Amino acid sequence: MAFVYVADLKKHAGQTVAVRGWLFHRRSAGKLHFLQVRDGSGVVQCVMGRKDVDEKTFELAGRATQESSVIVEGEVRLDERAPGGAELGVKKFEIHAMAEQPYPIAIQQHEHGVDFLMEQRHLWLRGPKSAATLRVRARVAQSIRDFFNNRGFFLVDPPILTPAACEGTTTLFNVEYFEDKAYLTQSGQLYMEAAAMALGKVYSFGPTFRAEKSKTRRHLTEFWMVEPEVAWATLDDIMNLAEEFVSFVVQRALETCREEFKVLERDPKPLEKIVPPFHRISYDDACAKVKAAGVEMKDEDDFGTPQEMAIVGDSEKPVMVHRYPTAVKAFYMKRDPQNEKRVLCVDVLAPGIGEIIGGGQRADDLRYLEDQIALHKLPRSAFEWYLDLRKYGSVPHSGFGLGLERTVAWICGNEHVRECIPFPRTIYRIYP
Amino acid sequence: MAFVYVADLKKHAGQTVAVRGWLFHRRSAGKLHFLQVRDGSGVVQCVMGRKDVDEKTFELAGRATQESSVIVEGEVRLDERAPGGAELGVKKFEIHAMAEQPYPIAIQQHEHGVDFLMEQRHLWLRGPKSAATLRVRARVAQSIRDFFNNRGFFLVDPPILTPAACEGTTTLFNVEYFEDKAYLTQSGQLYMEAAAMALGKVYSFGPTFRAEKSKTRRHLTEFWMVEPEVAWATLDDIMNLAEEFVSFVVQRALETCREEFKVLERDPKPLEKIVPPFHRISYDDACAKVKAAGVEMKDEDDFGTPQEMAIVGDSEKPVMVHRYPTAVKAFYMKRDPQNEKRVLCVDVLAPGIGEIIGGGQRADDLRYLEDQIALHKLPRSAFEWYLDLRKYGSVPHSGFGLGLERTVAWICGNEHVRECIPFPRTIYRIYP
Repeated sequence: MAFVYVADLKKHAGQTVAVRGWLFHRRSAGKLHFLQVRDGSGVVQCVMGRKDVDEKTFELAGRATQESSVIVEGEVRLDERAPGGAELGVKKFEIHAMAEQPYPIAIQQHEHGVDFLMEQRHLWLRGPKSAATLRVRARVAQSIRDFFNNRGFFLVDPPILTPAACEGTTTLFNVEYFEDKAYLTQSGQLYMEAAAMALGKVYSFGPTFRAEKSKTRRHLTEFWMVEPEVAWATLDDIMNLAEEFVSFVVQRALETCREEFKVLERDPKPLEKIVPPFHRISYDDACAKVKAAGVEMKDEDDFGTPQEMAIVGDSEKPVMVHRYPTAVKAFYMKRDPQNEKRVLCVDVLAPGIGEIIGGGQRADDLRYLEDQIALHKLPRSAFEWYLDLRKYGSVPHSGFGLGLERTVAWICGNEHVRECIPFPRTIYRIYP
Repeated sequence: MAFVYVADLKKHAGQTVAVRGWLFHRRSAGKLHFLQVRDGSGVVQCVMGRKDVDEKTFELAGRATQESSVIVEGEVRLDERAPGGAELGVKKFEIHAMAEQPYPIAIQQHEHGVDFLMEQRHLWLRGPKSAATLRVRARVAQSIRDFFNNRGFFLVDPPILTPAACEGTTTLFNVEYFEDKAYLTQSGQLYMEAAAMALGKVYSFGPTFRAEKSKTRRHLTEFWMVEPEVAWATLDDIMNLAEEFVSFVVQRALETCREEFKVLERDPKPLEKIVPPFHRISYDDACAKVKAAGVEMKDEDDFGTPQEMAIVGDSEKPVMVHRYPTAVKAFYMKRDPQNEKRVLCVDVLAPGIGEIIGGGQRADDLRYLEDQIALHKLPRSAFEWYLDLRKYGSVPHSGFGLGLERTVAWICGNEHVRECIPFPRTIYRIYP
């Protein structure tokens, strides 16, 4: 008997097949057991009538515990009402390993607090919403790669272990590197600039670390980030790229994640509106909007969550805010030739979640960059190689970084980023 | 004037287009300058006659320095002898930024030692062989993902920051994690086992760390590894998967990297033979082969490079060695029911490079695993979650890990893995 994945059952209508998986839920009604079996690809209801199997098997199914591993043989019956469109009329049933009782996580997960569920993350992954979120995550990651691969970008993996800080030292994790010290990367950008000078259009997509003490629904200490970098691109070019990119990823999710959105009770309607063009607004106009909304903020300051929410307002699309104050942005940003107090940068703020992209045009003038490194009190020796990129064939170039988990949270309609990564790391959590 | 990438020039035969890039090499002969311009997508020869441009431009081109950034406008002329199949008849030429002199890396790179080139890695990336190797790496990475995505595997990213060691503590990097201590992952496998119980077929593909003091041509402290894990799979299943996987990746490289192999002077012929089936040999038979080849080894010991080379011998295909001694393998391996001194594992050894894959079937019995954790003196508390996977619906399951850089080195015919990653990290190198 060939084994079939639940996701493929509809192709086997009328046939007798075998499914291997785990007993997610059982309901018994007199002469019938309704066994919901999940195998990772989906969940199928297996209906076992007392007369369909021998007495011992019927009795066994009646005491099968939640999450026991099972092998079920039966006839595939199409049924539009069934999740996945098919159910199985059981002919044979076997328990491979009976799960211990009680299973730590109740079927009604909301009975548990999030801390408890996170402690059980290795099992919680099996829950319908967790598994659906991880499937969306996998598909979003794939669409991100497809977008760049199809446009002639080369994947380049910047190092995780780095000798210097890219965006300030307060949020760095220290690593003992043999007799030396190293830091976990906060962004591969500086390396991606070197790669763009070699390969033209490049992107990285890997884990990134921030030792941030903030404990918010938007922060993880370890998260995945995609960072494209394009030689000869200006701020306008990269804003166009960001807009097309975000739209592509959202539209692809709509094509590939409909079943998952149902499980997650995510209304896909708002996502259908995520198409170019996005609204573009300067930092200065954004500040006016914040104040008009009655949200407090200091002049020339960066935005926090309340300000970002005020800027997005009731916009159905992400909002692109460009040209922030030089003082609140990183040393490598290119100054706006029209206004030296502004840099050619852009943040993309998504409805409900806030910043999902930060990027802009990079300083390409050697002297300016030398001054900035001194001004920011960064150790010049660690940046010699970076300065070389301006000595030998400097070109305008731009790029951005998009956080995967925030994007998945936004697409899934999930309030918390922590549920959008398989094993979240936060200031208080590094287990399991 | 629209800008065109060098790789697309052939589509514009007879047209006048503009190219942006860097001057890789210049040769002048009286009334002609031959300017080789690279833009990341390829290299094009731009031919400038004295009469084609004004005097100032011709003079400027004559003193343009290596790696200066340039904009060239000209007519696309198809020429089969030219690399890429086209050259540019220059009409306009502009230097965007003149590179300082001398450029640190000579055109004839072999004049430099590898240590010097590694110190200049941010510039060395621009060299034809470095860039070609990185292009192969990007395409191999893509084919790895395609293989698993197309077979219904879900991408799952295991954590990089982990509370415990998976394969022993001697080669772990320590991280200061707020008030606590963490380790950089050596393998995501244990987490992937949890994910396989949730999603069925999963794979991870991310950076992995080994604080190995060995300074060999096969070792990096930071490298990328792909790790599939399959619920219900046995050792035989995973050997079949490994064989198909490696063959797929090599055949795809042959389809997509022909130009790069020319640059790398890599004869593609040997790669054409990498198709299933691979030769399968037990550890015990492999030992006999080692001894027959006159290579020393201790009984029941693991293999090193000399032994691996003896086992591969003059085989044109990878060799799969299965069922190693229990004592030399990790605690989580499933014991061979036929021989308790052997575990159900497999290493795949590639010609010229040695081990590229390690994997096998995982222990699925709770008591056995508890004993192994005690026997290996591992902290039980750190593995409670892992034991849960055997308490709640244990199933047979198997997986493997493949090192990306070793695979790229093998495909490129490169002796050293260090040139197969953009910014290599070794015991002595963490810069740039």
